[in-house]
Amino acid sequence: MSDHPYYNQEVHGPYELFDLGPFPLEEGGTLRGCQLAYTTVGELSDTRDNAILLLPWYAGTSKRLGQAYIGPGRALDPGKYFIILVNQLGSGLSTSPHNTPAPFGRASFPRVRTGDDVRAQERLVRERFGLDHLELVLGASMGAQQAYEWTVRFPDMVKRAAPIAGTAKTTPHDLLYVETFSEAIRSDPAWRGGWYASAEDVHLGLRRHARVWGLMGFSTEFYKQAMWQGLGFSSLEDFLVGLLEGAFLPNDPNNLLCQAWKWQQSDVGRHSDGDLAAALGRVKAKTFVLPVDEDMVIPIRDCEAEQRLIPGSELRVINSLWGHLALLGLDPSYTQQLDRHLGELLDKTV
Amino acid sequence: MSDHPYYNQEVHGPYELFDLGPFPLEEGGTLRGCQLAYTTVGELSDTRDNAILLLPWYAGTSKRLGQAYIGPGRALDPGKYFIILVNQLGSGLSTSPHNTPAPFGRASFPRVRTGDDVRAQERLVRERFGLDHLELVLGASMGAQQAYEWTVRFPDMVKRAAPIAGTAKTTPHDLLYVETFSEAIRSDPAWRGGWYASAEDVHLGLRRHARVWGLMGFSTEFYKQAMWQGLGFSSLEDFLVGLLEGAFLPNDPNNLLCQAWKWQQSDVGRHSDGDLAAALGRVKAKTFVLPVDEDMVIPIRDCEAEQRLIPGSELRVINSLWGHLALLGLDPSYTQQLDRHLGELLDKTV
Repeated sequence: MSDHPYYNQEVHGPYELFDLGPFPLEEGGTLRGCQLAYTTVGELSDTRDNAILLLPWYAGTSKRLGQAYIGPGRALDPGKYFIILVNQLGSGLSTSPHNTPAPFGRASFPRVRTGDDVRAQERLVRERFGLDHLELVLGASMGAQQAYEWTVRFPDMVKRAAPIAGTAKTTPHDLLYVETFSEAIRSDPAWRGGWYASAEDVHLGLRRHARVWGLMGFSTEFYKQAMWQGLGFSSLEDFLVGLLEGAFLPNDPNNLLCQAWKWQQSDVGRHSDGDLAAALGRVKAKTFVLPVDEDMVIPIRDCEAEQRLIPGSELRVINSLWGHLALLGLDPSYTQQLDRHLGELLDKTV
Repeated sequence: MSDHPYYNQEVHGPYELFDLGPFPLEEGGTLRGCQLAYTTVGELSDTRDNAILLLPWYAGTSKRLGQAYIGPGRALDPGKYFIILVNQLGSGLSTSPHNTPAPFGRASFPRVRTGDDVRAQERLVRERFGLDHLELVLGASMGAQQAYEWTVRFPDMVKRAAPIAGTAKTTPHDLLYVETFSEAIRSDPAWRGGWYASAEDVHLGLRRHARVWGLMGFSTEFYKQAMWQGLGFSSLEDFLVGLLEGAFLPNDPNNLLCQAWKWQQSDVGRHSDGDLAAALGRVKAKTFVLPVDEDMVIPIRDCEAEQRLIPGSELRVINSLWGHLALLGLDPSYTQQLDRHLGELLDKTV
């Protein structure tokens, strides 16, 4: 599992692997010898009442998550909290298309849903750490989808929730967005229905996939103000290649498509026969819903519509010209606002 | 020129062809025997003071334009005004990649700029109809780009201008948007650098191009409310194939890419050494700038920034959940609002 040039501990570590054994999936497949990659920061208190679960976005891994959201003096202070960071099924670090042996790997990797990830995470939290509740469950984008799934599936385990730039149910427009960047990979003849010989063969598809992220991932004003200059890039093209193509090129295409399909299907309404309002009405966690004002992928309007369905929740809008990819944590203003909201949420007695 | 299954008078007619002779282009090429396809509605008054120029959007032709914007009792009333509708160079009806003989046709068709179209249109207006001014110049999206070009290039000829859902200078984000749908065509191996044998060979690229339009062309709320139902479609997929793939599939890929490049380069600031404020400061036309509130392609913010640079102009925001493609005129509320604004503009003494 560790000889891949990108999916290994040198690049993304250190991390541990939690063995789930044979893990049946909601769509009917089974991950045999399923492993969930995770890492922790800070110390679990003797009373086990300081645990936080930080959930990953699309193509994001625990290392980047930790760098972006955890730090001394920040809301997620490792001197105060025990923070568990997990990696998605399909992320390349946990069980994924690229590291699953034949006949079930690669293009034959079974469909994974958000609910599968959250069930695996719950076993990690309970079996590995003996926790029966979490002080806070949070994540951005696909991490928000998982956070919502936690609050609906395990309402008694989640004291506070902070879904950031993500929805409890994927909107039709997001379905189209994810389809567009997925199709950018699949339309590369080198993809060969997922049976490419080497991920590098599909580099043109991966590059186009990155460009679709460029189209929606940042705000129109981010580009108009050439805010990429502040990141040390010398031109728009230099930025698109350097940041976006650079970020996605090392990924395995089937791994990305596994996560993309999961994103498209995500819907906590499945717990109430498709009734989103009924599902969100069962949430017990004190919830801050945190959209980004300039986000084209996850508009405030969609977040607010869901927030209204969650008892006792609050809408906390973060202002950032970075748009959706403010979640990367490279905009100091985003980080400052987010930490303030998370600090308030953690201070609430629940 | 008329034996193409799509670019002919049966589909898009009736129209006339105005012969420009050899027409030198701003980028250095020449269109030999250049023809501008146009049609007119209504009667030119004896005093030649009731002429309106209606300009086309991307892949739009004079017939669709007329159907969407002209009618008895509407702002553009053919009983009152003489309305000239033109087709873009590269549109398939005017001189275009698909109808230009070798060696200059197809992938060797020269680059055309918005300024080339407007110079050709000005010759049509002046030489064919003997007009030295227009009561109103208007258009949506790429039509707005041409309208802006008119107001800056021929300020004394334009009494009133109504750029709808378009900008005087293409924004960096629009550059990316147009690049994304262009790349959807070019990435089809059947495109062969523009030297495909038949446009139908490139149908997968054209279909993906249509899907990118689906991603940005309508608002997120349009999809959330499943507003395609009101158009008689039975599912999201039925809509995407029926409306969008259906609209773009008959087009010649090189024709679309000719228009797309023109869109990307459009910038009236070229008339003032790149100084957009100086260029727009020269506009003499009474101008209503008309963005659509839910437009993801052309945000209000970008339109307003330009409107502020135009002396005596007004920002008139149109509300439509259709977003950018409200310009198609299929939303009755858009049509009603637009007609009200255009009526007010036409009533102004200038």
